[in-house]
Amino acid sequence: MIGFVSLVGAGPGDPELLTLKAARRLAEADLVLYDALVSEEMLELAPGAQHVLVGKRVARPSIEQDAIHRLMIRGARRGQRVVRLKCGDPFVLGRGGEEALALAAAGIPFEVIPGLTTAVTAPGLSGIPVTHRGLASGFVVVSGHAEAAYRPILEAVAPGSLTVVILMGLAARGALSALLLSRGWRGATPAAVCLAAGTARAHTWIGTLGALATAPVAMDHADAPGTMVIGEVVSVGATIAAALFPHAFVPAAQAV
Amino acid sequence: MIGFVSLVGAGPGDPELLTLKAARRLAEADLVLYDALVSEEMLELAPGAQHVLVGKRVARPSIEQDAIHRLMIRGARRGQRVVRLKCGDPFVLGRGGEEALALAAAGIPFEVIPGLTTAVTAPGLSGIPVTHRGLASGFVVVSGHAEAAYRPILEAVAPGSLTVVILMGLAARGALSALLLSRGWRGATPAAVCLAAGTARAHTWIGTLGALATAPVAMDHADAPGTMVIGEVVSVGATIAAALFPHAFVPAAQAV
Repeated sequence: MIGFVSLVGAGPGDPELLTLKAARRLAEADLVLYDALVSEEMLELAPGAQHVLVGKRVARPSIEQDAIHRLMIRGARRGQRVVRLKCGDPFVLGRGGEEALALAAAGIPFEVIPGLTTAVTAPGLSGIPVTHRGLASGFVVVSGHAEAAYRPILEAVAPGSLTVVILMGLAARGALSALLLSRGWRGATPAAVCLAAGTARAHTWIGTLGALATAPVAMDHADAPGTMVIGEVVSVGATIAAALFPHAFVPAAQAV
Repeated sequence: MIGFVSLVGAGPGDPELLTLKAARRLAEADLVLYDALVSEEMLELAPGAQHVLVGKRVARPSIEQDAIHRLMIRGARRGQRVVRLKCGDPFVLGRGGEEALALAAAGIPFEVIPGLTTAVTAPGLSGIPVTHRGLASGFVVVSGHAEAAYRPILEAVAPGSLTVVILMGLAARGALSALLLSRGWRGATPAAVCLAAGTARAHTWIGTLGALATAPVAMDHADAPGTMVIGEVVSVGATIAAALFPHAFVPAAQAV
């Protein structure tokens, strides 16, 4: 009897932000193939399953990805209920499409269970709405991992026309902010860096696009995922954040 | 004793796609203020609460929105645990920012619990990844409700550079596709309409940008929320959808 694979979005990190459906699949799973950012606490929701770490923060793409496909397919062929637990949403910069295609090609029955995407949730947990009436009627999400990928997108976006959300671009924040400034974005445009959103280590820096290149990232966050948000919505977010987190210390020099 | 307001994202509609945290808040709620698209099934998760419908599909914005603020604030001042249950994610084209600002201004303690945004989840539940390696490293989300809002954004996006997701634009799909075509997008660009995603009435149309203006929307979906997706990722989605929903009928003329 053939098994079944669930491609499951784990959301930003907090197990409470899993969907009911994701939690149910974990509870029934025989095998969980999980990304590096998935917490121990989340894996405890799958007490009857074998847990295998398959993600790396800095991966050797082709080898890694093929190995993940093989593990999913092998598990299903052994009759296992396999949960492929992916950070955020499986279909946002997460190679979920490639994994789904591999399962389809192998004739393995599968499903896709969406998760909270970091693109919206990391700002949201920091109090920042990606859209706001009168300020931004839309937003663009890009990966800051490779310049060849983000440059044509960010070059085409009219300055100030919408909110820009950049995932996986913390290390390139100097180049990213320089690119936007060179395209006519104002240095005073509000900007934020949301670090380790949805975890106990969560921290938000709020400042301006002009200061983004030198935004401090504490050593203990050097390996944390960082989501950058650029646009007027960040100023609304600063007001909301002040109400949500009244005891958080926001240095005056960084306030919007 | 003052109460507490939870601004909660309900996700696309399926109660199973609520987060664990959202379900817990509903279970403990005294008052649930919910949008029109929230299902009866979801409200059953709040058996001890008073349920008040506050959303309309076609709203008179200012009056409606102020009334929602007053209801939230009044409930909290009476000591109630108030859940403001919003479709999708509270901070994506949902006025969650305005509601948070109103609570902050009134000094009401509150929290924001993200939900699955329709922008990513409607395509995802149809099998369409909004990003895919080699096809799209990013995506843009806009509201198709008002031309003044979407025109500057869509005019600025370079044809084919990323995936375009349009919420609340079903009625304007003729004008929207004409705009993209006039800006140099190819008529053969794959396009999809995801109707009532996450509900029992879910239906996906897959075709091309050139055919989007005349994409059929069945009468029984005329009042359903529709999410449009334009970009090469839709062709990947068609392959994934064929594996996910092998018994769904896709007319050859509409296949990509």
